[in-house]
Amino acid sequence: MASAPDTLAVPAAPARPAARRPLDLRRVRLDGGLLGDWQRVNREGTIPHCIERLETSGVLDNLRRLVGESDAPFRGPLFADSDLYKTLEAIGWEAVRGDVAELLPFVDDAVRLLEAAQEDDGYLDSYYQGPHAGERFTDLPQGHEMYKLGHLVQAAVAWAHAGRTDLLDIALRYVELVHKTFGAGGRDDIDGHPEIETALVELSRLTGDPRHRELARRMLDLRGYRTIGEGQFGGAYYQDYTPVAEAREATGHAVRQLYLLAGATDVELDEPDAGYRTALDALWASVHEHKMYATGGLGSRHRGESFGDPYELPADRAYSETCAAIANLHWNWRMLLLDGDARYADEIERGLYNAIAVSTSLDGRAYFYSNPLQLRTGHTHEEDAPSTRLDWYFCACCPPNLARLLSSINAYLVTESDDAVQFQLYTPGTFEVGDGVTATVRTGFPWTSRVDVTFDVPTARTTQFRVPAWAAGATVAVDGAAPAPAAPGFVDAPAGTTSVVLDLPVEPVFERAHPWVDGVRGTRALRRGPVYYCLEEADLPPGVRLEDVVIPLRPTAVEAGSDAELGVPVLDIPGARAHAAHADLYGPAGDDAPAAAIGTVRAIPYFRWANRAPGAMRVWMPTS
Amino acid sequence: MASAPDTLAVPAAPARPAARRPLDLRRVRLDGGLLGDWQRVNREGTIPHCIERLETSGVLDNLRRLVGESDAPFRGPLFADSDLYKTLEAIGWEAVRGDVAELLPFVDDAVRLLEAAQEDDGYLDSYYQGPHAGERFTDLPQGHEMYKLGHLVQAAVAWAHAGRTDLLDIALRYVELVHKTFGAGGRDDIDGHPEIETALVELSRLTGDPRHRELARRMLDLRGYRTIGEGQFGGAYYQDYTPVAEAREATGHAVRQLYLLAGATDVELDEPDAGYRTALDALWASVHEHKMYATGGLGSRHRGESFGDPYELPADRAYSETCAAIANLHWNWRMLLLDGDARYADEIERGLYNAIAVSTSLDGRAYFYSNPLQLRTGHTHEEDAPSTRLDWYFCACCPPNLARLLSSINAYLVTESDDAVQFQLYTPGTFEVGDGVTATVRTGFPWTSRVDVTFDVPTARTTQFRVPAWAAGATVAVDGAAPAPAAPGFVDAPAGTTSVVLDLPVEPVFERAHPWVDGVRGTRALRRGPVYYCLEEADLPPGVRLEDVVIPLRPTAVEAGSDAELGVPVLDIPGARAHAAHADLYGPAGDDAPAAAIGTVRAIPYFRWANRAPGAMRVWMPTS
Repeated sequence: MASAPDTLAVPAAPARPAARRPLDLRRVRLDGGLLGDWQRVNREGTIPHCIERLETSGVLDNLRRLVGESDAPFRGPLFADSDLYKTLEAIGWEAVRGDVAELLPFVDDAVRLLEAAQEDDGYLDSYYQGPHAGERFTDLPQGHEMYKLGHLVQAAVAWAHAGRTDLLDIALRYVELVHKTFGAGGRDDIDGHPEIETALVELSRLTGDPRHRELARRMLDLRGYRTIGEGQFGGAYYQDYTPVAEAREATGHAVRQLYLLAGATDVELDEPDAGYRTALDALWASVHEHKMYATGGLGSRHRGESFGDPYELPADRAYSETCAAIANLHWNWRMLLLDGDARYADEIERGLYNAIAVSTSLDGRAYFYSNPLQLRTGHTHEEDAPSTRLDWYFCACCPPNLARLLSSINAYLVTESDDAVQFQLYTPGTFEVGDGVTATVRTGFPWTSRVDVTFDVPTARTTQFRVPAWAAGATVAVDGAAPAPAAPGFVDAPAGTTSVVLDLPVEPVFERAHPWVDGVRGTRALRRGPVYYCLEEADLPPGVRLEDVVIPLRPTAVEAGSDAELGVPVLDIPGARAHAAHADLYGPAGDDAPAAAIGTVRAIPYFRWANRAPGAMRVWMPTS
Repeated sequence: MASAPDTLAVPAAPARPAARRPLDLRRVRLDGGLLGDWQRVNREGTIPHCIERLETSGVLDNLRRLVGESDAPFRGPLFADSDLYKTLEAIGWEAVRGDVAELLPFVDDAVRLLEAAQEDDGYLDSYYQGPHAGERFTDLPQGHEMYKLGHLVQAAVAWAHAGRTDLLDIALRYVELVHKTFGAGGRDDIDGHPEIETALVELSRLTGDPRHRELARRMLDLRGYRTIGEGQFGGAYYQDYTPVAEAREATGHAVRQLYLLAGATDVELDEPDAGYRTALDALWASVHEHKMYATGGLGSRHRGESFGDPYELPADRAYSETCAAIANLHWNWRMLLLDGDARYADEIERGLYNAIAVSTSLDGRAYFYSNPLQLRTGHTHEEDAPSTRLDWYFCACCPPNLARLLSSINAYLVTESDDAVQFQLYTPGTFEVGDGVTATVRTGFPWTSRVDVTFDVPTARTTQFRVPAWAAGATVAVDGAAPAPAAPGFVDAPAGTTSVVLDLPVEPVFERAHPWVDGVRGTRALRRGPVYYCLEEADLPPGVRLEDVVIPLRPTAVEAGSDAELGVPVLDIPGARAHAAHADLYGPAGDDAPAAAIGTVRAIPYFRWANRAPGAMRVWMPTS
């Protein structure tokens, strides 16, 4: 029987000193605010909804049929077990932070089923023990067996931190089978969907057993030689096209690419100079400087759910899968621990308040899988890109992935090093920052600029406060001193501080994209602090079609108060015009239809669109 | 045994009077020029190349194994037989027009194999008699059985017109099996890939047997009720999402959509008031006014090879499959026969000189499958969109489709009606226009504006000359009279005419797209007559990256002579600039990098790109 761990209760707790260490998430309590409210909605809405859907979509029945408790046919995709594991992980982090009594019947029953279904040799997979019994480990490109196991391990780790180890015992039995089958001396083979790598490293941290990390490393280093062949979708799709340490461009299936990079970073954290750093830096630049949407969304192509060429970033066909943005948060967090640079937290903030936040409805019970930056009037391809959030998907990877992120979001806010504490993201709450010091953060951020941090006793170490790259004109005031300019990066307050006031101006700013981003040439995006805004059909004057709206070449945005229904500040853009007459699809230049004045158009935070009547939306607004 | 037909030798010979009738293609002889040269390259390059590849790709072996002449495994996609049929059709049209002695050994052997392989009940399919024997007609969504049969029928029709009916006997035996299986009283079912509809109508025209057209009609009318279920890719993909007569928007798989519409138009031609016309008109507008690339390319999405939403027309991810442009030519030709409006010929011209022409290399032996309007510097997704034409594809539908089009291109140039003859497309050659009159066309069109048409004897009927919508300032001079302005549509010359001189000014014109086409906002395309031009990396000043090039807001283009290597006129655009410094991927508006003057950039006809060193290309040129 595994025992409760003494490592930090967080999703990633490096075993060796790194640039930054996370805070055990029990040291962080959220107190309302955007993240705190979202975590509450996650607990009250998303997690119970996931539990319901695991039942109705057949995921639990798939296990029951293995133990004679159901005669329903297998339902869902072959990786459906992972939806259960992610939901269990989400509840596990809730259990680490507090009471989950009302969810325990579900957890107990799920663990009982898993125990009962697990084969004597440790194998556990409702698809390959069910309708495809006898075919275990025969379809590595598509089978997702180790992907599922990775999520089982992560759920087990969360529950071990909560003091419950029965799930860990199950996971360890299966992991041992994988050691025997795919460990050194076994099959030189890998799974078509990376995920197990980061899970195995975490398992080694939790258990202190280096074999798990070595297995992760083995899997990383076997990858890139068309080890599993071309499968159904080709080597790039499966991230088996170039050795991990030699990769320089993000390509192929975005979620696979980003989980793989998170795993490589985990190995690099625990084995300094593991040899991946050059690749990690190059890939980070490829992702964030060439292939990322302004919202932090990743994946430009529906076909293959993949990254595109550099600067290929169409707004309307942005795939921007929810899971890719979550995977990128995981990766950036590990890079932040490895390196400490503020840019990694900048990208966590970007993704969290845009590409990730947009995926969930106000009540937490409906989800986008793909998060485009534009939806056209007359959109009819609902099967390809729904115009409203759906309450579940056949491939339901995203909703429980959101659930596990939000239940552990406390872990991604503050870091520490030997001589300092770093505040990475700002949200109201209390933070036990070590040395017996508790910080209280009071702020309306990201809606208001002021962040008040007070310490119950004078700090024992330097405290560092991240100034986002977007926060031009930021200031910091320490212990009541006059505000001083604060450049992007980190601004320090010395040991002995009792209060810090940050001003991170969340002014509306219109942005342009790099000129090579053809998809949004001649347009502007409106950002307010870390939050991107959009135009939505529901806010347009009657009779105006969104595609016709043109904002001024040098636009301005005016604060227009809070929208009661959406609960967020909205912005008005004066001086808008609309094309009133239209020529043919193509025609000689010069006969462009004139645009008529329509006055002011309203912009709302991108992440709140599609909470009213369905309709067109766009983040990038034409200026001509 | 079938006998040689007495209907017109053309790919579509309506059985009833329509607005326009085609000319038997034996009445048209090309004499050089762009189309004549291309037809020669097709005969000398493409057709022999297809024959070679049918051998090396296994298509012929797939048949040989059925008759014990090969033990090779089945190779190629399950619809590989259709590549053979399209090649046979191409040779058939060559045989209608002249001598094909050197190709007859291939044809004889292929027909012998087909005869030997055909089952007693008429079934013939190397996949479902081969590796999937016993599964005939069990996978209608994906099986392509009737698609293959459609192409067999079209090959048989071409050869029947050439006086050879053994292939027609084979086709008829299989068609009778389909009558028994899927005809009235049989299975209410359809194929997942439309194509057989237009083939069956043509078979009915050739044989005079209305049952074939009635079967086509039955198949059309069964479609749209999710008759074959969702298959692997959904009802829209298989064109089974809405009844044909009720459809109003082009959607789903573009080639399937367009072949289906060609078939419905064929039925409408032979059964006036068949009930499809309202749908055909709406779909025509949907395709040509909302969903078509300037090049005549169709299909905005790689995923599902499908149409996108209206105005969703990204240049870089244009799928624009060669077969879709060919299918649209087929459809527009039938609409032209049905209706007579010049716009259908305008679209035939657009597609032929752009989206179709670009698919083939100068030597006719390499092909694009997808024909995007932009290829980026640093493109790495060769598996998804190759940057050069390939000499074959696993799914090799396009090359032999080109071959059959070019071998029958004579059929698409001139039409007639009871009281007039219509010149639709202009290319050098002789045209027996009826009444014992032969017209000789002399022109350098589309490179030069002047088209000389002389008749060997005075015309007996009105002759009508299409003035393309793009030809602003066109004039016509009849029998040496002063040139008179000619508006788009048709300009008439009365009976008794012996010479007509058209001037269709092929001046360079910069075009804009409709403001809703987000993919090309802030850019211009350069068109010269019917031919679109592009910038290609090979022509740029050293050190300039194509994505940096900016043309003037009000650009001009200067004739720059003929490029010796490419054999086509090129154009110079003075006053170009290039972005010399670059900001981050996203940033505040106003810090756009200035552009430095680089002088003149050269544009070449789009259809000739990728015949030199591989590199970036773009049709739509940024003006800022």
